[in-house]
Amino acid sequence: MEEKEISQAVIGRLPRYFRYLGELKDEGVERISSQDLSGLMKVTASQIRQDFNNFGGFGQQGYGYNVEYLYNEIGRILGLDRQHNYVIVGAGNLGRALGNYINFERRGFILCGMFDQKPELVGMEVRGVRVMAMEEMESFIRDNDIDIAVLTIPKAGALSVAERLAQTGIRAIWNFAHVDLNVPERIQVENVHLSDSLMKLSYNINRYTKEQETL
Amino acid sequence: MEEKEISQAVIGRLPRYFRYLGELKDEGVERISSQDLSGLMKVTASQIRQDFNNFGGFGQQGYGYNVEYLYNEIGRILGLDRQHNYVIVGAGNLGRALGNYINFERRGFILCGMFDQKPELVGMEVRGVRVMAMEEMESFIRDNDIDIAVLTIPKAGALSVAERLAQTGIRAIWNFAHVDLNVPERIQVENVHLSDSLMKLSYNINRYTKEQETL
Repeated sequence: MEEKEISQAVIGRLPRYFRYLGELKDEGVERISSQDLSGLMKVTASQIRQDFNNFGGFGQQGYGYNVEYLYNEIGRILGLDRQHNYVIVGAGNLGRALGNYINFERRGFILCGMFDQKPELVGMEVRGVRVMAMEEMESFIRDNDIDIAVLTIPKAGALSVAERLAQTGIRAIWNFAHVDLNVPERIQVENVHLSDSLMKLSYNINRYTKEQETL
Repeated sequence: MEEKEISQAVIGRLPRYFRYLGELKDEGVERISSQDLSGLMKVTASQIRQDFNNFGGFGQQGYGYNVEYLYNEIGRILGLDRQHNYVIVGAGNLGRALGNYINFERRGFILCGMFDQKPELVGMEVRGVRVMAMEEMESFIRDNDIDIAVLTIPKAGALSVAERLAQTGIRAIWNFAHVDLNVPERIQVENVHLSDSLMKLSYNINRYTKEQETL
C-alpha cells in the first residue's frame, strides 16, 4: 500500500496541470506535446512524464496528449467530478473572503453554512449563506452532509474547535489557523499557514540580497 | 553556487521550526534535544539534524539545542531581524483580511499602503492605513521604501499589475492571484494558490475513501 501511494509532492502539482489544461481547453487547443506543455509551465518534460506515469501516463502518443481528456482525467483524480459541501468556521475577514470565492463553486465546492462565536456576526449573510452560532455547528454538519470545514479562526480557539469537528462526520479540515491540528487519520488536513509563506518570502529576499552583495 | 544553495523544501520547513521554538521559548523551555523536538513536531530527529546541518548545525551538544539561540538564529536566517515594508494591491475581502493580520507586524512586516482600482474603496482605512488609487502605486512604492507587494486581485488584472510592479524597486511579490507571474529574477515570488490547496484536499478525501472501500 505504502509503496504504491502517490507522493504528496506529485499531488501538489496536479492542480497546476489542471489549471493550465483548463486554459488550453478554453483556448480551443486539442492536443499538446509534453515539450510544449513543459515550455508553457516551466517544468521539464521529463518531470511531466514522470508525474503523469503515476496515473498510467494518460495515453500520450507520438503526437502528444489530448487536452480535454487530460483535463477531465486530472479533474477526476482530484475528485472534482463530485460535489463537496463545506462550512466556514470563523466569519471574520478571511472567512468572509473565502466565502465570497465563487470559483470554488465552479469546482464543485458548495458553501452551505458559516459559524462564528461573535453574536454580532451571527445572522449576517455571505452570498445568501447565513452565519450561525457555534452551538449549531455539529447538528448542521450532520444534517447537511458536510464534507469540509474551513477553519478561519485565531490559533487560540482552533484546537478545541478541531476537537469538536473530529466528533462529527467531517472528512477534511482546510486549516488557516496558525497551529498544527491533531485529528484522527480519517480527517484530511490541508494547512494554509500564511505567516510561514511570508517568512519564506522574507528568506528569499535576504538570500538574494546576500548573493548580489557577494557577486 | 547552485551546489551550496539550500533547497526550497528546507526553507519551507524553517518557519515551522521557528513557530515551535517560539512556543517553547514562551513556555520558558531553555534546552531541547532533537529527539524531543522530533516528538513535538512529528518529524524524524534525523530530518531535524539534516535540516539544521544546512546552517552549520546550530551547535547542538549532547544535551540538546539552546532554544532561545536556535529561535533567534532561525529568525535571523529568515530575515526576521530586519523590517520589511509592504503594500497590499487589491483591497477586497482577502486584501483587507491580510491587512488586518497584526501578527505580520510582530514579525517585522509593516503595512504601509493599500491600493485598489475601485473608486468606492479608495479612501477607506484598514488599521489606519489608507486605500489609494492604483495610479499612485509606483510613486508610493518608490517614496516609502517598499519591499513587498501583496497581490490580492483577480487573475484577470494580475499580470499587468505584476508588470507595473516589475518596473519599481519592489523586491518581492506575495501572490494570491490564481495565475503564475512572469517577473525578473530579482523579484522573489511566493504563490498562495488557494484553489490548488483546496483541490489537494479534495484529492486526499477521495483517496482516503477509495482506500477504505478496498480494505
